[in-house]
Amino acid sequence: MGTGGDQRTGSMTGVPELKGFMLPRSPEGRASIVPAPPWHYSGDVLTIEYRTDPARVEAVLPAGVDPAPEDPGAVAIIWADWQSCSDSGEELLDPVRSQYKECFVVVRCAYRGEVFSRCVYIWVDKDFALARGWYQGYPKKLGQIWMTRPITVGRAGPRLNAGGTLGATLAANDRRLADVTLTLTDESETGGFVNALPMLHSRWMPHIDPSRAASLDELVTMRSRDVEAGPVWKGKPTVSLHEAPAEELAHLAPHEMIAGYWRQVGATFVGGSTLD
Amino acid sequence: MGTGGDQRTGSMTGVPELKGFMLPRSPEGRASIVPAPPWHYSGDVLTIEYRTDPARVEAVLPAGVDPAPEDPGAVAIIWADWQSCSDSGEELLDPVRSQYKECFVVVRCAYRGEVFSRCVYIWVDKDFALARGWYQGYPKKLGQIWMTRPITVGRAGPRLNAGGTLGATLAANDRRLADVTLTLTDESETGGFVNALPMLHSRWMPHIDPSRAASLDELVTMRSRDVEAGPVWKGKPTVSLHEAPAEELAHLAPHEMIAGYWRQVGATFVGGSTLD
Amino acid sequence: MGTGGDQRTGSMTGVPELKGFMLPRSPEGRASIVPAPPWHYSGDVLTIEYRTDPARVEAVLPAGVDPAPEDPGAVAIIWADWQSCSDSGEELLDPVRSQYKECFVVVRCAYRGEVFSRCVYIWVDKDFALARGWYQGYPKKLGQIWMTRPITVGRAGPRLNAGGTLGATLAANDRRLADVTLTLTDESETGGFVNALPMLHSRWMPHIDPSRAASLDELVTMRSRDVEAGPVWKGKPTVSLHEAPAEELAHLAPHEMIAGYWRQVGATFVGGSTLD
Amino acid sequence: MGTGGDQRTGSMTGVPELKGFMLPRSPEGRASIVPAPPWHYSGDVLTIEYRTDPARVEAVLPAGVDPAPEDPGAVAIIWADWQSCSDSGEELLDPVRSQYKECFVVVRCAYRGEVFSRCVYIWVDKDFALARGWYQGYPKKLGQIWMTRPITVGRAGPRLNAGGTLGATLAANDRRLADVTLTLTDESETGGFVNALPMLHSRWMPHIDPSRAASLDELVTMRSRDVEAGPVWKGKPTVSLHEAPAEELAHLAPHEMIAGYWRQVGATFVGGSTLD
Repeated sequence: MGTGGDQRTGSMTGVPELKGFMLPRSPEGRASIVPAPPWHYSGDVLTIEYRTDPARVEAVLPAGVDPAPEDPGAVAIIWADWQSCSDSGEELLDPVRSQYKECFVVVRCAYRGEVFSRCVYIWVDKDFALARGWYQGYPKKLGQIWMTRPITVGRAGPRLNAGGTLGATLAANDRRLADVTLTLTDESETGGFVNALPMLHSRWMPHIDPSRAASLDELVTMRSRDVEAGPVWKGKPTVSLHEAPAEELAHLAPHEMIAGYWRQVGATFVGGSTLD
Repeated sequence: MGTGGDQRTGSMTGVPELKGFMLPRSPEGRASIVPAPPWHYSGDVLTIEYRTDPARVEAVLPAGVDPAPEDPGAVAIIWADWQSCSDSGEELLDPVRSQYKECFVVVRCAYRGEVFSRCVYIWVDKDFALARGWYQGYPKKLGQIWMTRPITVGRAGPRLNAGGTLGATLAANDRRLADVTLTLTDESETGGFVNALPMLHSRWMPHIDPSRAASLDELVTMRSRDVEAGPVWKGKPTVSLHEAPAEELAHLAPHEMIAGYWRQVGATFVGGSTLD
Repeated sequence: MGTGGDQRTGSMTGVPELKGFMLPRSPEGRASIVPAPPWHYSGDVLTIEYRTDPARVEAVLPAGVDPAPEDPGAVAIIWADWQSCSDSGEELLDPVRSQYKECFVVVRCAYRGEVFSRCVYIWVDKDFALARGWYQGYPKKLGQIWMTRPITVGRAGPRLNAGGTLGATLAANDRRLADVTLTLTDESETGGFVNALPMLHSRWMPHIDPSRAASLDELVTMRSRDVEAGPVWKGKPTVSLHEAPAEELAHLAPHEMIAGYWRQVGATFVGGSTLD
Repeated sequence: MGTGGDQRTGSMTGVPELKGFMLPRSPEGRASIVPAPPWHYSGDVLTIEYRTDPARVEAVLPAGVDPAPEDPGAVAIIWADWQSCSDSGEELLDPVRSQYKECFVVVRCAYRGEVFSRCVYIWVDKDFALARGWYQGYPKKLGQIWMTRPITVGRAGPRLNAGGTLGATLAANDRRLADVTLTLTDESETGGFVNALPMLHSRWMPHIDPSRAASLDELVTMRSRDVEAGPVWKGKPTVSLHEAPAEELAHLAPHEMIAGYWRQVGATFVGGSTLD
C-alpha cells in the first residue's frame, strides 16, 4: 500500500499488527483461510496425457508466452486426492481441513527460452485449497471431483494390476464437465512429461476500480520440493470433455491419446519466485 | 399389499410391471436409488472400542432384546471410507456413485440366547448408502464424515507405524458430533469384538396412518460374506462425543477406553433373514 | 413383527420401549431422522405442465393402476423451495433442519374408478425430507435443486410481472438432469391440474432375503390439509430433460407444453390411508 | 507485471490476449470464476447489532486504522440470502450460479478522520461469491449459512409481525460457529448503523516468496449504488458464538445487545477506489 505503510505500523498505535498468511487477518492469525507454507501433500494422482490441436493450447496461453517448441498440442488432465497440512500438522487430525480432491489441466509453454508447465484450469473441493491456488497462480474454482481408488482387499474396485480400470469425473455448477478412464497395462519408469516442468503461472487481481489496469499481474514460477513418488502404473486412457456455460474446458478436446498414469505422490511447497 | 396382488399383475393390462430393487421403480429398473444386491465393499475401517455405563447400552436396545451377558457396556464407534458396487461394477467408473464414508455405533445384545452385534446410530454421506441401510436395518441419517488416511509417501499424514496418529470426525446438521484419535502401537491379530457378531437389526416403517401400528416392524439378522481383511494395526484411542438437538449419541459417552484398530476390509452383502 | 410383539413389550424387562417416529429409535425419541407428523410446509412452488407420449406415462405406473381416462399423457414437473416443521416448530430456529428444496414429477392415474395424482420421480436435498418421502411413498433420492426467486427490490431477478422469467434446475450424481424456464404472462385462478388430486403412492421395501416377496408393498393415498395458496402467476414454459446412467427421467420428454405456474403454498400433512 | 507489459501484448504474437475479469482467464473470457461488474444483488438481510469489549474490536483492525470515536465496541453480525447477477443476467436462469448465502461481521473504524464500516470475517457458500469478496477485500471463507424465511401462507415459519422469531446459523469445517435469533417487535425507520458507512477493506496477497513483503496490500473503499430497501422490521436479538480451531469469531462475544433488523435489500456494485 505504497505510502500508507508508515501509518499502519503497529508501533504508532500500540496495537499489534494483524496476523495470518492470507485473509482474514486476525489478532492470533488462526483465522486465515490457510496457514503459511510450507505446505505438505501426500496423495493419489491420476494423469492422462493427450494431444489437442496446438492452436487450442496456444489460445489458452497469455500473450508473451509461447507454445512449447516440441509437441505443442500436448495436454495433461490430472485428478488428485490429497491429504495436506502445514508444518504444524494439526489439520491431519481434523481431516475436513486437510483432505481435498482436485482436477486440473496442464499444458507446456515457452517463456524467455525456457519450457514450463502451466495449469490453465483447475477445480478443487475445499476453500483452503482454493486459496492456496490463488496464491500460487493456480486458477482454482470449486468443483466436485471423484476418482476410483485401487483396492487391496475385496471386490469393490480394481487392483493395481494389468487390466484394472480406474475412472475419474469432474463437475461444477451441477454439470458434468469431464469423464475419463484409465485401463492399466504395466508398470512404468515415468509418470508423464506435460506436468513435469517448473510451473509458469499468472497471479492476477483486477483493480478495485475495474476501469484501471490490474492491481496484480505477475508471472511466477515454482516447483515442489522433496518429491517422493511410489511405483507408477501406466495404461490406456479415454477422455470425454463436456460443454458448460461458464467453462471453456471442452475447447481442449482430445484428438489423440498419449497415455495415462497412476501413482502416489508426496511433495512440499515452500514458495516460488516472480519472473520479471 | 395383501389381496391386491392379483389386480396388479402386469398380465391384466399388458403393461410390464415396474422394475427396480428399491424406489423409484421404473420401466427399466435403472432409476432405483440403489441396484439389487450383491453389494461389494472395499475400504478403510477405523474402529474404537470403549465402555460406557451398561444402562446406557440397555437403553438403546428395543424391548425384548437384552444386554449382552459379558461386558454389556462395550461400544464400538467405527469410521469407514468405502468404495462399493453392485455385481455389474459399473458404479466403479463413476465413483460419485460408488464411494461414501460412514460413521456408526455398534453395541452387543442378546436375543433368544444368542449374542449379536447391533448398529444403533449411523451416518453416511450418499443417498445410495442411506437406502441400503434402511433396507438392512442400519438406521442411517446423513452426515459429514472424515478420517485421516495413512500415507506411504511424503509428509502429509501418518504412516502405518507405531506412533502414527489418525483422527476421525462426524458432523450432522452443521454441528460436530464426534472427534476421535487413534495412536498406533503395534500390529494386532484381531480388530475388535463389538462389531464381530451377526447383526441384529430392526427394520421399521410407521403406518401411513400414524395412529396405527407400524407397517414394518421386523427383527432381521445378516452377516457379510467373503470377508477379506488386511493387516490390523492396534492403538490407543481418544473419543469425544458432543450434544446436539436431534441426536442422542452423547448419551453413550465413554467411561473407559478399550482399544482402537485400523485395517482395510473387503466384504460382500447378499441378504439376511428375519428372526421370528 | 408378527408374533414377536409379546416378547418385545417393555414391561417384560423393565426397560422402556424405544421412542421415535422413524429410525433411529432411541431412548428419548429425539434421534429419529424426522419427528412425527403433523408436518407443516410453507414455500414457493413452480409447476410446469406438459404432454408426453401417453405410453410413457403408462410405463411408469405400477401394474393394476391405469392411465387417467382424459389427457393421459399430461405430466407436471414441479420445483419447490420449502420451509417445514413439526408441531413443535423448533426446527424453524435451526433452519438447516427445516429448509429444503425438491424437484418432482407427477402424472395422473386411475385406480378402482377414481383418478389420482402420482409422484413417479423426486429429488430432495436433505435427509429429513428424504425420510418423509419414503414414509409417504414419494420415491425420493438426493439431488441438487435450484429455482429463481422473484424479487421485490433491486435488479437481481424477475418481478412477479408479465415478462418476468424464472429458471429451475435439477442435478444428481454430478449430472444436470433438468433445466426449465417459465416466462410469466398473467395472473391465474388455478395452478394446474396434474398435481391437484389425492395422491396414489406405492410404499415398498424389499424383503431382507432378496429372493422373497417384498416386505412392504402397499398402495396408499393422502392429501394435504389446510392448504393455503397465494396469488398464482401463469406463464409459458420450456423444459429440457437430460439422460443419465441411473435415471429414467428423460423418458418423459415433453411433446407439447401446457402451461406453467408460480405461487406460494402452505399445507399440513397429518397422514394418509392404505388402499386395499 | 511491471516491465513485462510490452512483451505480453497480443500484437507481438498474433494471439489475442486472454479474456476474463478474474482467473481463470481464457480465450472467450467465459471461464472466469465470476463475470465483470456491475454486480446486482437482491435478497433478504438479517442484521444483529451488539456491543463487545471495544478492545476486541480494536484488535481486529489493521495497524494505522483506529477505532470509531463513538460506540467503538459496536458489532453487526449479518446474514444474507442473495440472488445476484452480472449485467447480462444470464445467471438468473441457472440459479446455482446466482444464489448464495453469507454471514459476515462488521465493525466501524476511523481512517484519516473519516469513519468507515469494515467487514472483518465473512463466510459464503459459493465460489463466485468468494472470488467477488477477495476482489472487494471481504475476507471470505466457505461456510454453511442458514436463516429462517418469513412466510406469507401456511404454518411453517414466522410472519413479519410482532412476535415472529427468526433464527440464523453459521458453520464451517463441520462445526457450528454462530446461532442467533431475532424476535420481531415493530417496524423501523432504520436498519442499523454499524454496516451503514462506506467500507474500508484490505486487499491482501502474500508474495510468491513468503519471505518477502506482500504483493498486494491495499486499503480500498467502496459503497453500493442504487440501494433499494423494503420495509424494515426491528426486534430483540440473541447471539451465541462458538470456539473453533481455525476461527477467531468467538473473540467478538457480545456483552450487550443493541437490536436486530430484517429487510429485503437490492443494490449494485460497480467498483471502488484505493485509499492512498
